[in-house]
Amino acid sequence: MTGNTFGNAFRITTFGESHGPGLGVVIDGCPAGLPLTEADVQAELDKRKPGQSEVTTQRKEADMVEILSGVFEGLTTGTPIAMLVRNADARSAAYENIRNIARPGHADFGYMEKYGMRDYRGGGRSSGRETLSRVAGGAVAKKLLSLYGVEVHAHTVAIGNVRAKPATIEEIKANVWKNPVRCADLSAADAMLREVSAAREASDSVGGIVEIVATGVPAGVGTPAFDKLDACLAYALMGIGGVKAVEIGAGIASAGMRGSEMNDEFCTEDGKVRTKTNRCGGILGGISTGMPIVCRAAIKPTPSISRPQRTVNLETGAETIIEITGRHDPSIVPRAVPVAEAMVALVIVDQMISGGLINPVSAGAVDASRNR
Amino acid sequence: MTGNTFGNAFRITTFGESHGPGLGVVIDGCPAGLPLTEADVQAELDKRKPGQSEVTTQRKEADMVEILSGVFEGLTTGTPIAMLVRNADARSAAYENIRNIARPGHADFGYMEKYGMRDYRGGGRSSGRETLSRVAGGAVAKKLLSLYGVEVHAHTVAIGNVRAKPATIEEIKANVWKNPVRCADLSAADAMLREVSAAREASDSVGGIVEIVATGVPAGVGTPAFDKLDACLAYALMGIGGVKAVEIGAGIASAGMRGSEMNDEFCTEDGKVRTKTNRCGGILGGISTGMPIVCRAAIKPTPSISRPQRTVNLETGAETIIEITGRHDPSIVPRAVPVAEAMVALVIVDQMISGGLINPVSAGAVDASRNR
Amino acid sequence: MTGNTFGNAFRITTFGESHGPGLGVVIDGCPAGLPLTEADVQAELDKRKPGQSEVTTQRKEADMVEILSGVFEGLTTGTPIAMLVRNADARSAAYENIRNIARPGHADFGYMEKYGMRDYRGGGRSSGRETLSRVAGGAVAKKLLSLYGVEVHAHTVAIGNVRAKPATIEEIKANVWKNPVRCADLSAADAMLREVSAAREASDSVGGIVEIVATGVPAGVGTPAFDKLDACLAYALMGIGGVKAVEIGAGIASAGMRGSEMNDEFCTEDGKVRTKTNRCGGILGGISTGMPIVCRAAIKPTPSISRPQRTVNLETGAETIIEITGRHDPSIVPRAVPVAEAMVALVIVDQMISGGLINPVSAGAVDASRNR
Amino acid sequence: MTGNTFGNAFRITTFGESHGPGLGVVIDGCPAGLPLTEADVQAELDKRKPGQSEVTTQRKEADMVEILSGVFEGLTTGTPIAMLVRNADARSAAYENIRNIARPGHADFGYMEKYGMRDYRGGGRSSGRETLSRVAGGAVAKKLLSLYGVEVHAHTVAIGNVRAKPATIEEIKANVWKNPVRCADLSAADAMLREVSAAREASDSVGGIVEIVATGVPAGVGTPAFDKLDACLAYALMGIGGVKAVEIGAGIASAGMRGSEMNDEFCTEDGKVRTKTNRCGGILGGISTGMPIVCRAAIKPTPSISRPQRTVNLETGAETIIEITGRHDPSIVPRAVPVAEAMVALVIVDQMISGGLINPVSAGAVDASRNR
Repeated sequence: MTGNTFGNAFRITTFGESHGPGLGVVIDGCPAGLPLTEADVQAELDKRKPGQSEVTTQRKEADMVEILSGVFEGLTTGTPIAMLVRNADARSAAYENIRNIARPGHADFGYMEKYGMRDYRGGGRSSGRETLSRVAGGAVAKKLLSLYGVEVHAHTVAIGNVRAKPATIEEIKANVWKNPVRCADLSAADAMLREVSAAREASDSVGGIVEIVATGVPAGVGTPAFDKLDACLAYALMGIGGVKAVEIGAGIASAGMRGSEMNDEFCTEDGKVRTKTNRCGGILGGISTGMPIVCRAAIKPTPSISRPQRTVNLETGAETIIEITGRHDPSIVPRAVPVAEAMVALVIVDQMISGGLINPVSAGAVDASRNR
Repeated sequence: MTGNTFGNAFRITTFGESHGPGLGVVIDGCPAGLPLTEADVQAELDKRKPGQSEVTTQRKEADMVEILSGVFEGLTTGTPIAMLVRNADARSAAYENIRNIARPGHADFGYMEKYGMRDYRGGGRSSGRETLSRVAGGAVAKKLLSLYGVEVHAHTVAIGNVRAKPATIEEIKANVWKNPVRCADLSAADAMLREVSAAREASDSVGGIVEIVATGVPAGVGTPAFDKLDACLAYALMGIGGVKAVEIGAGIASAGMRGSEMNDEFCTEDGKVRTKTNRCGGILGGISTGMPIVCRAAIKPTPSISRPQRTVNLETGAETIIEITGRHDPSIVPRAVPVAEAMVALVIVDQMISGGLINPVSAGAVDASRNR
Repeated sequence: MTGNTFGNAFRITTFGESHGPGLGVVIDGCPAGLPLTEADVQAELDKRKPGQSEVTTQRKEADMVEILSGVFEGLTTGTPIAMLVRNADARSAAYENIRNIARPGHADFGYMEKYGMRDYRGGGRSSGRETLSRVAGGAVAKKLLSLYGVEVHAHTVAIGNVRAKPATIEEIKANVWKNPVRCADLSAADAMLREVSAAREASDSVGGIVEIVATGVPAGVGTPAFDKLDACLAYALMGIGGVKAVEIGAGIASAGMRGSEMNDEFCTEDGKVRTKTNRCGGILGGISTGMPIVCRAAIKPTPSISRPQRTVNLETGAETIIEITGRHDPSIVPRAVPVAEAMVALVIVDQMISGGLINPVSAGAVDASRNR
Repeated sequence: MTGNTFGNAFRITTFGESHGPGLGVVIDGCPAGLPLTEADVQAELDKRKPGQSEVTTQRKEADMVEILSGVFEGLTTGTPIAMLVRNADARSAAYENIRNIARPGHADFGYMEKYGMRDYRGGGRSSGRETLSRVAGGAVAKKLLSLYGVEVHAHTVAIGNVRAKPATIEEIKANVWKNPVRCADLSAADAMLREVSAAREASDSVGGIVEIVATGVPAGVGTPAFDKLDACLAYALMGIGGVKAVEIGAGIASAGMRGSEMNDEFCTEDGKVRTKTNRCGGILGGISTGMPIVCRAAIKPTPSISRPQRTVNLETGAETIIEITGRHDPSIVPRAVPVAEAMVALVIVDQMISGGLINPVSAGAVDASRNR
């Protein structure tokens, strides 16, 4: 277990620190013949780019992606696709004062304990910038899934105590990228913005919840007993920095429900089996039902707050006070939206290849014989 | 991805169906020199044995485990440890009537869609009996962890709408195995029993929440970026049948908190760095902090309820009504308690070996050089 | 890396020691719908059974296999297939005198150094009996491959200094199982038998070479850059106890050849591309060409010889003399034949599933869309 | 199985094609605290650089490596180390005429069959340039191994029919990098050069054999049953382009030996157990004995020869004649020497970490408690 590879049949290996030369990803297992350009990937990266609004950090970076391998004459070749984004705006001097200080709520302390050292500049590998590699990998996964009719859409459903109304997939597609909090419910979006502003004014931060919906996933996707679809989604989402809970379908509420409320009854529609309701979030026994996959990730408030906090100098062992300077997102929830999309897309494409529903070497070669 | 192996450095491969000849597990990666007997494993298996009370199913089985390999003269040898439990009480005729019927809330439909066939007897591989293999594997993980001062304890914190009071680790150890709902709060346990009985009387079932606490885990355990400790716990717990949500520390509540509420400040105690609070559940940036690991799994109500439910005959495609007969647990939450313990133990032991904190080939050979 | 799992998409996990309760295998990744009975597996196991002739050891064992899971109504279900063979004739007292002695040419010393202990009875895990699990796994691989027109046949091509004439696939099929040395050239078989007898009479042993031919493997099988078909075959064959060299096609002779001798020119035959010759052994650039796969494994003489040999007592550190008693095969080459077949079959089935040429979840569901 | 990741605890993922933007590697699992500079890696890359002599190709490239991540203030950080080498001299037009032609002895045909397409420029991913990534990865493995007293040295022992005399490790170190054929026997080196020249003059090519010796590997390294040290070496070496056979110790010759000749007797020397001879190549039962690891790889003659060869146009299906133009190495054996070193180093470091002999997260933190 070395930790920086995700997936089995379609796998990404990521690298890079916040203030090193660059970040990137190597995708191994993408079938040949998929049309792919840097613009496809750039479009996804732009969704997480900083400096877009008052909500997110002001660090100005082009974050232009370069494809280093695996694409020839506009098509993937079946060989590894490496992509690189150079770091530009890297004022590492700004971090010299936290060299030995464990910031509360951050990974600093764990890295020091584990490795005995760390690249402290901007969080190093534990920086949110690391998710850039995931989004680049997810961009390819999404492109491949689109050939099979699968779409993945994420949206913010809560920030602090503001919750969005339930949204249709059409509302999500129409509204999410129009507002800085990535919410499908435009009036809730305004309230969320105010919640973020209030937190910033209080030198504080807020958490929230992202929901991800995948449509078009055929029934039969998932690999019991351990690589169930929901288990892999939980692994993928909990691995995003700041996520403290993952729910599938009714999620935590299911604990308080009766079986007669929770069970989704089966029916037929146009000759296909489906469920009348979807409290299970499109997954039963770890295998997709053909209904939309619905899951949520709860994200804690940004740990970087400008209030003084008590902590410890890891070199001297002395207790001390830290005041984090610089500009930090009062909420990382909006920036987690494209990351959550990417991770869910990566899980589904991996499972579909492993399950014989996407040909592992040739994109578009749908296995017609599977249509039972 | 074939789905039936869990873990990397310490891995279990499980097999077996509810009504086949038997179930079992092969553990690969257990260091040599660990004292291990069948009694060690049996003690853990007995915690999940059916027929213990009115809460759980009445199927009478000895579920006696046999160690087939990997142990010599009372010690593990470093070679694979295979364990087998024979199925005894296998009245498969009882399931003939559901051969082609998808039970609502069950895995039946997904298995048929995925494999084109299934062993329908008692749920086959998707039966709760499959967790027996996990508990047997977890028993060895727990034995190994005990050499390093790590303990894992699970307890029921909610059934239906009854919630237990917060419990100390001492209360958990003292009370959990004394009551059939596995709750550390004995007065809540009574209310939970009533909740279960009420559900049964209503031909219905109830869900609940299991919390798992691991103590003695050193700081520095976890493998970013993808195999973070929390990500692996989420994967492990969400992979247990019926789990619909996983929380770490403050969990879902963290979404509604401010950073100043959520952040755990660092301090020193007896010369060691620790946090004053533990809202992060002992994990920051995917790496343990040295504080107790705290996580929870929300479990849906048992899908087998005796009320008539609408469904589809998968052979004919006709809509139909199913009435599930036989005795079924109105709540599987108590039986998930030892399973959750096992899965958390498996994650921690795997991470500790991968991280150099447990020697991979020789039990007890603690790496003293790591003590920085 | 825990060492006892082989394969990716079709994987076996093996367990068991020579003198423990039993040995077995768990197959994960076998598609559903493959007809499979214990008799299918038993037939392969019988090919390696001891006591068949004067050539092999006299230990009498039934070695009857039991399928514990994964098969329902005569068909595989897509869930793990566990198989168990109990040990019967286990006179472990016979090994008490070598408890602390490292037998020359054996694994004893390495196991002691690695694990600090070992199950010394009959070689424990390093016994040739361990290959029983591989043959059981290979039996299922061969059955699955047969649906796709792939056959794997091994034969002895050398024992000591006796070499067999080149054999056609028909001669291999017709002759190999008719003589105790598993040679397709019946007159060479007689000479080989004499070579074995001469070694025994000299209180010595002899080595030899096994060749494996796989027919019907389509072009396009293999996964560069590291999991090339030849690389995986080398890994599989070198992992059999006693193998000291692996060759593909022209093998070692290719080092002395000119390019114009070695290159196989391409031609067409019945509209299909093939090569006129097959010096490459059916593999170019790590990918199959559609010609027969041809590889060989050179096997050292049995290390157990009855002559006195100098060695060391690992407990006391004193130099000593060992005289190995009991009956041992003067040549393990014939018993390696079914093992080599099994390992090659396992490699090919794994690669064909990974490459989309065998459906991973449904046996027989050939991906027609791949036929370009 | 996606093919482009090698190793488990210390793993490399490689990417890049001959004529794409660049090639590189991501190393995951390198412990923190290892001193590493680009110069360390460049020194290894320079050993395989083309244009060094009349023996190797004339393509002029700087092949300067850039470290993109994982190193901070001159030390590895425990996070992924990505390295990139840009392609410079990429005259892809020169390959337009072989776009649809399968070159005999090359990977072209297999790639077309597998993926339905290929980057035909310079062999694309199947080019020898791909080994650059391996050498970069191996450079880090060698640096890490050096902390533990392990050294890996390769040398050419045969080209065509010229064989070198046996060499001591001192001769190998002293002579190999001084002559263009990388031979430790300087008089054989001259004869090998003549063999290469003769082949070139005959518009032909020659094969050869590379031997690799690893010293300082402690006893106890290797992971039976499948990940034996010799099995992993065979996998690593057979995966190098052009390798057709792999031998361990006595190798193929062991097939013709008697047990009394082959067995290495144990003795003690300075209180340590060792073997008097080393016919087993330092490996018994898949585990190192503490003696030098000795293995060899037989390499076929370069398939690119300037003589006309018969082949097939894969687009039209017509038989045709190909005449390969451009300059090609008449023997790739010398360039395989650093690649073989790299692969053996990667295997050993992976096994030592997996076996607890190198700390997985902190370089230099030798596990003193293992010294039994």
